[in-house]
Order: sequence, then structure tokens, then C-alpha cells
Amino acid sequence: MWTPDRSNGQPIYQQIADDLERRISYGEFPPGSLLPSERKLAEQLGVNRSTVILAYAELRSLGIIESRSGSGTRVSKYKWGATPKHTPNWSRYAVGGSFLPNVPFLRRIREALGHNPSLIDFASGELEGDLSPVEEINSLLSGNHFNSYLGYDNPHGYTPLRQSLVSYLHKYRQIQTTESSILVTSGSQQSLYLITQCLLSPGDAVAIEDPSYCYSLPMFQSAGLRLFRLPVDSKGIKPEDIRALYKKHRIKMVFLNPNFQNPTGAVLDPERRARLLDLVSELGLPIVEDDPFSLTAYEETPPPPIKSIDTLGSVLYIGSFSKMAASGLRVGWLVAPHSVVERLADARQQMDFGLSVVPQKLASQFLNSDYFAPHLERLRLRLLYKRDLLIEAIRAELGDLVKFTVPQGGLHLWCKVKPEVNDGKLLEEAIRRGVIFVPGSVYGSDSGYVRFTYARAGEQQIRPGIMKFAAALRAVLG
Amino acid sequence: MWTPDRSNGQPIYQQIADDLERRISYGEFPPGSLLPSERKLAEQLGVNRSTVILAYAELRSLGIIESRSGSGTRVSKYKWGATPKHTPNWSRYAVGGSFLPNVPFLRRIREALGHNPSLIDFASGELEGDLSPVEEINSLLSGNHFNSYLGYDNPHGYTPLRQSLVSYLHKYRQIQTTESSILVTSGSQQSLYLITQCLLSPGDAVAIEDPSYCYSLPMFQSAGLRLFRLPVDSKGIKPEDIRALYKKHRIKMVFLNPNFQNPTGAVLDPERRARLLDLVSELGLPIVEDDPFSLTAYEETPPPPIKSIDTLGSVLYIGSFSKMAASGLRVGWLVAPHSVVERLADARQQMDFGLSVVPQKLASQFLNSDYFAPHLERLRLRLLYKRDLLIEAIRAELGDLVKFTVPQGGLHLWCKVKPEVNDGKLLEEAIRRGVIFVPGSVYGSDSGYVRFTYARAGEQQIRPGIMKFAAALRAVLG
Repeated sequence: MWTPDRSNGQPIYQQIADDLERRISYGEFPPGSLLPSERKLAEQLGVNRSTVILAYAELRSLGIIESRSGSGTRVSKYKWGATPKHTPNWSRYAVGGSFLPNVPFLRRIREALGHNPSLIDFASGELEGDLSPVEEINSLLSGNHFNSYLGYDNPHGYTPLRQSLVSYLHKYRQIQTTESSILVTSGSQQSLYLITQCLLSPGDAVAIEDPSYCYSLPMFQSAGLRLFRLPVDSKGIKPEDIRALYKKHRIKMVFLNPNFQNPTGAVLDPERRARLLDLVSELGLPIVEDDPFSLTAYEETPPPPIKSIDTLGSVLYIGSFSKMAASGLRVGWLVAPHSVVERLADARQQMDFGLSVVPQKLASQFLNSDYFAPHLERLRLRLLYKRDLLIEAIRAELGDLVKFTVPQGGLHLWCKVKPEVNDGKLLEEAIRRGVIFVPGSVYGSDSGYVRFTYARAGEQQIRPGIMKFAAALRAVLG
Repeated sequence: MWTPDRSNGQPIYQQIADDLERRISYGEFPPGSLLPSERKLAEQLGVNRSTVILAYAELRSLGIIESRSGSGTRVSKYKWGATPKHTPNWSRYAVGGSFLPNVPFLRRIREALGHNPSLIDFASGELEGDLSPVEEINSLLSGNHFNSYLGYDNPHGYTPLRQSLVSYLHKYRQIQTTESSILVTSGSQQSLYLITQCLLSPGDAVAIEDPSYCYSLPMFQSAGLRLFRLPVDSKGIKPEDIRALYKKHRIKMVFLNPNFQNPTGAVLDPERRARLLDLVSELGLPIVEDDPFSLTAYEETPPPPIKSIDTLGSVLYIGSFSKMAASGLRVGWLVAPHSVVERLADARQQMDFGLSVVPQKLASQFLNSDYFAPHLERLRLRLLYKRDLLIEAIRAELGDLVKFTVPQGGLHLWCKVKPEVNDGKLLEEAIRRGVIFVPGSVYGSDSGYVRFTYARAGEQQIRPGIMKFAAALRAVLG
């Protein structure tokens, strides 16, 4: 994004006016469209609001923009030709469409992180650069050669990668499968998107955990699904709740994240897993198992997935590199029966024509390389260390103000703020003080919960981040 | 895909039975699910049908599968446990979902190409490996280093790539824009998908060219849009037709591919472009301009896009690397007003969380490198040569049986078969004889048209391919 050049001699307001005039003439802000508010543009450009007021006054004097009180500043409609011509009403088009926008808190978080990269980030559910195998990827890259074809890939995914995944799933996840049961996707997100678009119809009822990251994904609502809740306790969901939902609402699918659940960190109890599989086989009900975090298990052997004991084929299994290596590779996978793989591969070809072969080849080489196991070992130790730093900071800075269960894997700590607090106010106050997190209501919980991700922020940032959060919380509590 | 090992000593039918038993036990074919027909499995594995019949008999004798006349062969339901348990009815799930599958001819083409890689391919609308800058990409790759972060990318796309695209669009396409007006997508396909999902609502009417590749994309129907036709002649569509559709159906958007249109190869006449822009500005109607082929223009300067003369911001402009460099990079772009870019970036983050940064970085480096201009020059000359090879072959082998206009750019030749012919029969006969093409009805035209892509097949394959096609056509005409 363009920002004013303080050393170029021209007044800042004039530079801003020139840049806006250029962007208007290029069509970024067509005639009639709304410009950012003075406050917002000032924040984006890192200048005082008075500078933006001057820039807008300059453009107004040229007839390029118009301000009307109460309706903001717009690009003039009649400047652009002698006869009245109409630009499409793009903002109306942008609010149309059947696909729903992200939830407001998540858009606010993305916007805040975009404008202020120095925020201490407890919000983004991903690994910091230092936890990703960047050196390893670089060394695979430089040894790499695409010997011939760089065309459209197999819509199921790059064959050598699917072969590597068969071995990986067997060795690390105790899942027996074949390459024709695997669909390579752009992360778990795309697996979920394809499932909601292609296997379910508007009006269908589905069961999801409560709380769950699924509530942060409007794709469920965009697909017209009716969502019913399975409360999560320290041992995960209770299978009997599924039976009740099935009786009452004829749910058609169950979405679970049984290992180090996002956001609670809960691991589904082994005995409940057995009962769960009995129950769904009685009802003929499919389970979607999302398993991104298992290999981060800190101190024990990673819990096996439900899929590893699924003898009847009731489970669609989703995995990804995002939380255990690098989200920027955008490589995930779905293990599913033949008819499902074929259906989703066909749909996905229409949506994006498949993934680039370049990251798929890298991912395959990384899985097969001697780098993979040591990377996982290092990742687990580093995450454990960061978890402990976070807990130490919370105990010191927040004491009795919050309550939480210590997670044994994953990237997140789920906290209940004990006094009553307004999620939105706490978030804004925290952003103002330089730290950001995800309010629990994004995951469908009541107000007053907080998800802290400790994987993304640097080790030195954790204590200062919690100090800022504590100050924000105290300010909001008054 | 697994195939039998003829050297391993074990009978082929036994190997097939063992492999199926393994795949059934892994859940690829759950209890109750339909297995491929004997004919189809034989084709997939490259064995005689009688071998598959023996393999199925073996599995039947073990109680693993059941055949009932008229309903095919299924995995047994009751083999898998003492009490009756139900696997989800996956095939019913696979036919559910609001997203429509690909059109049958395209699924048939993909299946045929998957099973028989030696088919001469006049169907896939992409470049052969030899036309892609594979050496150049390799040399960029080996000099490449990701210095730190491999996390989620900016949802608008990798910033250096958007900067490179601003220069590229200015230099090669006479489009003035800024990086904040650009959304990087997984090829043109994803741009179109996002537009149909996010800017239009079910029931909305849109105008598309006739014939058009848009008819091959069920995404328009999946989004619930009503499609109206703009006939294409040798000078493209007629603007007056848009006015008529607007009056009658209140169309909300117009989809155009004005330069070397797919499939006809037509270039929209300059005078019609001016009238088109006048008309849409009068109606306040947006145009989606898909421009994948312009830089393949064989002998003249590439025709500029409509976007380059769009002073009012009526045009959403789509471009891509797929047809001018390598479809396997999966890098495309959309130039749009601010409100549209924001809306689509938000939706795309929900669908796939954005593109991998690895191909985006490569694409950016390639655009900025000294390789880019010579690559385009070489591509144009080679495509021209292949076009002439195809036309020579058609004139020699088909003579008066077909009629076509010589395209001046792009990858396709659009042919009318003069005698009456059934598309499906011709396609099957051609596949049997070792050549494949796309029947014109896929693009919404009447039966009896054929799209030949000359970019994908090797130079030595073009004449033999047309000979096979000619034989198939004569066989079908009888």
C-alpha cells in the first residue's frame, strides 16, 4: 500500500490528494463510490486526521469528490463526462451475492493487523516464521527441478504427494489408505468448504462442537446449513448428545476436532470415541474429523485419530501442513471414500482448477526427507516452551482474573475471564494498547472468553503482550 | 493408481482381488457402496474384462462383495460385524449438495485422458510442456530463497506480485491500476467463481457470449443465475443485443472474452467496443472482461483490452498466467474497484485461505525477469506454427467436411462439421481411435461443432491426430 514520502519535499496532504486522484482515475474508486472516512484513511496512512482533511478539501475544490454531512465523502458523479453516465453501483454488488462475509470481529482483527504490524499477535492461529521449516524448504527448493510439464495437475492432487501422504498417514496417524482415497486441498479450510458445498444441501442439519472454530466460518451459513451444538467438556463431546440431535433434527453430518480441539484444547476421551463410532454406525451418520494439531502433542505420544479405528468407513478425515509446518504452503488433504473424492475433485476443478504443482512437490519432498521428523520434534518442544511462557505470564499478570485448562497440544489457550466483560470493548482496548486476541464469541461461546494463540507471537513478546492485555482488561473493568 | 504387476508370478485376477479387498478394508469402498463395473475397471487397469470377472467372483466367494443383476456389484453390508451396522450412504451424499458437477462431456473427456495418456489431446485448453517456460522457472527456483516467513499470505495476494502486475498491466495491457485494485487468484477460474458467488444472487440474470466457454462452467448454474445469450459473429458480440436483454430481463452483468474468444477466436471490433462502453455506462451495467489470450496474438500487436479504454470503471478485468506461461502455477488476477476487491478477498479467505506464496513469488520474479519478453515472442511463433500445422492437416484430411475461420491468436480452432453429426457418437468414435477434442455443445452451440486446441498436442501429433479424427468422422457419417 502506498504511503506518503516524508522526504520528497511536497506537502503530505498534497501527496495524499495526488494519490487519491490517481486511484480514482484508475477506477479503484469509481464515480459515486464512498471514500474511506477521514479517521480511517489517516490510520491507514499513518498521518494526522487534519492532513487527510486538507487532502479531501483539495480534491473537493477540484470537483473530484463531494462530501455530504452524514453520508461521508464520495467520488463526484458528473465530473467524468459531459453527458450523465453511470458507473455500476459496485458497493451494491459487493453487498449482494449469496456467500456471506466473515464475522465482524475477524474482519476487525485482520484490519487491525494490516494497519499495525507491530501489534503483539495472539490472534492468528498459525506458527511464527521461526517455527516453520524455512531452511529445510529453502534447501529442498534449491535442489529442485521441474523436469518437464507445468500444466494443470490431476484434479485429485499431485500423484507423488498423494503417495507420500499414504506413507505419512500410516506411519504418523495409524491410518490405512490408498492414494485414490486422497484429495489434496488448499488446507483444511478448502476441505471443509468442499464438504459443505457438495455433500450437504441448504436446510440440512449438522452437529458441531460448542465452542468450535466452525462458528468462525460463515461458510456453514452460506451453504444454508442449520447448526446444532455439541457441548465440549474436558473430555470432548458426549456421544449421547448426537443421538438426541439426530432424533430431534435428523442431523446429516457431525463435525469434530477431537485432538486438542480449537479453541478449548480438549482431547476426546478414548472411551467416548468407541461409543461415538458405535452410535454413528447405528445411525448411518458420517463424521468429519479435522485433525490439524495432533502432531504437536507436547509430552505424550500423539493421540490417534478417530479415523484409525473407523472400520466401517464413517469418517471423512482432514489433515493439513498449516499447523505443523507452514500455512503458506497451502497444502492439506482429505481421506474419503471413492465416491466422495470423485465428487469433490470434480467440484474443485470448477472452483480453482486445483493447486499449483510447485508447493505440492515441495510438500511431498519434505514429507519424505530426513528433515520431517526432527522438525516435528523441534516444533513440539518450542510450542511447549511457549505455552509455558504464556501460562507463567498469565499467572503473574492476571492471577485470579482468568481461568483455564492447560492444553497438552495445539497452538491455543482458552481462557474464561472471571468478571463480566464486554468482548468488543476488551478487544478495542487491547488493540489500542498494542495486543490482539480472538474474542471467544467468535467460536460460538458466551461473551467473556478469550482465545490466546501462543504459536504466532515471538517468545520475547509473550510477557509484554499479556501485560498489555492485563492493562486493557483492568481498564475495561474500570 | 495401482495396476497389476505382470512379473510378480501371482495371477493377475488374484492381484486385483487382493487390491480391491485392501481398498475396501481401508474405507475407499465402504460397505454397501457400488464398485466400478467390470468393463470400467478392466479399462482402468488395462486388463481383459474376463480377468475382472474372475477377481469379482473370488471376492464374492469370500462374501466381501455381492452382485445383483441390474444394480451392479456392491460391497457386502453384513460381512463387517455381528450386529447390523450402517456405513453412511456416501453415494447419496455425493449426489447431494448445491454445487453442480461438471457437464457430462467434460467428465467423459477427463476420464478418457486419465485412463489413456496416449490419446492425442486436442481437448485440454492449455500449453504443452514445451511451450511453458520450464527452464526459466527452474533457474528462478534454484536461485530462490524464502528469507523468513512462510505463513498465511495477505488475502489480496503476495504484495510483490501485485506490484509486478501493476507494471505488467501498464506495459503489456495499457491498463492503469494500483496494487490495491488487484486480487491474485487461482487462475481466471477462481476469479469467475468468486464473482458468481459473491456479486450475484440466485435468480439474477446475466448475459454471456454464444458460444462461450462459460457454458462449460456449471458454476453459473450452481449460483442460480439465469443465463441469456449474446451471439458472437466474426466481429464479436453486438452491443445492441445487450440493450435488448437489459430491457427484457434486467440483466445485472455481462461476461465477455473479447480477444481471441474461446471457442470462436473472434476479436471484438474496436467500433463495437466504443459503443459497448457507451451503452453500459448509460445502463450502469458492469462488464466482466476475461483476457487470457491477448498476448498470444500471432502477427499483429495484441489487441488492447476493453479495460484500457474504460474511463468510468465499468469493467472487472481478469487475467492469468495459464494460457501464456504455465497453468500449473495457478496464478491469475482480477482488477476491480476497491469495494469489490475487499469483498472477494474476504470470501476467498473463507474458501481456501489464499494461494501458496511459493508460486506467487515465482510468478512475480518471472514477470520482472529478462525471460518474460523472449518467452512471449517464442510462444507466439510456436503457436502460429502449430496453428498452421493444424489447418494444413484439416485441409488435407477433412477438406470440405468442415468449415472454420482462421484464428489470429489464442489456442483454439473452432470448426463447423458440415454434414449433420451426433456430438456424443463422434466423441466416442474419436476416443476409440486415439484422439480427443471438445464437442461444441459444451460451449452452448448446436450439435456439429468441434473445438480443436492446437497448443497442447505435440507438433508431430497434429497430423496423425487429424487423420484419426477424419477416420472417426467418416465412420460416424457411415
